[in-house]
Amino acid sequence: MHVLVIGSEGFVGSKLVDKLLSDSEINGKGIKELTLADVIAPSMPLEDADFTVHTAKIDISDGDQIIGLLEGRPDIIFHLVGEGDEADFNGYKVNVESTHKILEAIRLMGDYKPRLVYNSTLAVFGPPLPDVVPDQHACTPASSYGTQAAILELLIGDYSRKGYLDGVCIRLPTVVIRPFEPNKTASSFLSSIIREPIANMEAACPVPLSFRHPVASGRAAVRFLVRAASLTEKELTDGRAITMPSLSVTVGDMIQSLENVTGKHAVELIKHEPDDSLQSIA
Amino acid sequence: MHVLVIGSEGFVGSKLVDKLLSDSEINGKGIKELTLADVIAPSMPLEDADFTVHTAKIDISDGDQIIGLLEGRPDIIFHLVGEGDEADFNGYKVNVESTHKILEAIRLMGDYKPRLVYNSTLAVFGPPLPDVVPDQHACTPASSYGTQAAILELLIGDYSRKGYLDGVCIRLPTVVIRPFEPNKTASSFLSSIIREPIANMEAACPVPLSFRHPVASGRAAVRFLVRAASLTEKELTDGRAITMPSLSVTVGDMIQSLENVTGKHAVELIKHEPDDSLQSIA
Repeated sequence: MHVLVIGSEGFVGSKLVDKLLSDSEINGKGIKELTLADVIAPSMPLEDADFTVHTAKIDISDGDQIIGLLEGRPDIIFHLVGEGDEADFNGYKVNVESTHKILEAIRLMGDYKPRLVYNSTLAVFGPPLPDVVPDQHACTPASSYGTQAAILELLIGDYSRKGYLDGVCIRLPTVVIRPFEPNKTASSFLSSIIREPIANMEAACPVPLSFRHPVASGRAAVRFLVRAASLTEKELTDGRAITMPSLSVTVGDMIQSLENVTGKHAVELIKHEPDDSLQSIA
Repeated sequence: MHVLVIGSEGFVGSKLVDKLLSDSEINGKGIKELTLADVIAPSMPLEDADFTVHTAKIDISDGDQIIGLLEGRPDIIFHLVGEGDEADFNGYKVNVESTHKILEAIRLMGDYKPRLVYNSTLAVFGPPLPDVVPDQHACTPASSYGTQAAILELLIGDYSRKGYLDGVCIRLPTVVIRPFEPNKTASSFLSSIIREPIANMEAACPVPLSFRHPVASGRAAVRFLVRAASLTEKELTDGRAITMPSLSVTVGDMIQSLENVTGKHAVELIKHEPDDSLQSIA
């Protein structure tokens, strides 16, 4: 089996690659070949892999580079996009147009129908969320990132319905705790209010303690992706966009947990700076 | 007030233009200027209009032509797209990419925020539809045309949320009876089973008599569009995609009505040819 990971250098992507390298299989099927692609050169230590590993530094907005990427006809494509900057509209180019190019390239190959697993997001739903979010909850996103993910779900659904693709979109909750890295997503504070105090640094909390949000660990996100790679047609009868389980926590819960582990000092580094402009977080 | 109609030569577009020409106003506000744009040269008899009428034969997939179209800064843009051919994927280019170009052109103009009224469709929802379809019903389209409309609703919603645009998407039911014209949409038969027998021609009906579908007249569709042009911010609190009322009829109801008006002869021209491939109609 040939597996392609687009976005292999991201937080979730690199954790997924770790798992694929150590398991050498996906749900019982052996990996023969793995291709890692990212806009920055993949940096994993790959020499010990039990199978062939290719790396590709690519710009997915370039149609030719996409076609090159698909030439090895990977059986499973993990497509992990996520330009989440709300301040500009770059996500339409990076997330939507690039992905549409990939779908078109696959369609035009004709006799090629890979499983494509896309890391969608709970941000496809706008607030308020019900306590339990059914897969069929209407998508009324309140962020551009959520809008772009909802558009990609529609595109992947349509290409799959027409038989050009075998796509699965899994709606990930906010993955915490993310490592230090440039991140302009609105949900960034959910990591920083834990990560920075542990490192003895201040962190700003823009929402009240009662703010409730669904989260999952990086490990859980990887499990979701791997499971999605093998879902059968029969398991996809309710559609190809599937809402993932999550932990529903308040910011107060998170800070209390931090205090339980580190004591009062770390918690005092969290500065409460309400930001009313924060309508929705992704 | 300057009004632009993109798609002025289509069935609904031309009925809308008729109405604007005869009313010379939209919900009480006078029209000073009207620009009619279509891929074919507008053919209306315009000499009697009470205001200035411009016509533009344009290809909306051409960015430069779009910018030219917006130079007069129309206050209201009726954007009536609808390439509904399910057999190829051309609708992504004609409907989605072109509209995105229009939204981008408006955004980049900076201080320009027109009301844009887009003729969306009930096909954004896939079957089965509940008896009453709430605006917040999830969009799980079962046609490429419906998928494209759902994508445009998301785009117009996001650009409006960000303040770049003042968009309203009205989800039209299937408009019947359409005139003779090339039409590859799946819903085409809903017009032809009435239109052709009246003209003493045979028509094929691909669904059972019990097939129920929401329809509206061309006159109702124009009323919806005109009303949408003046909806206030306060009336748009539930979102910018609004499901229009419709008549819920079965094909049996339609054929019975035809018989009531024309007698048995016309009805006998309808050939019942079930087409199981017809999953969803737009």
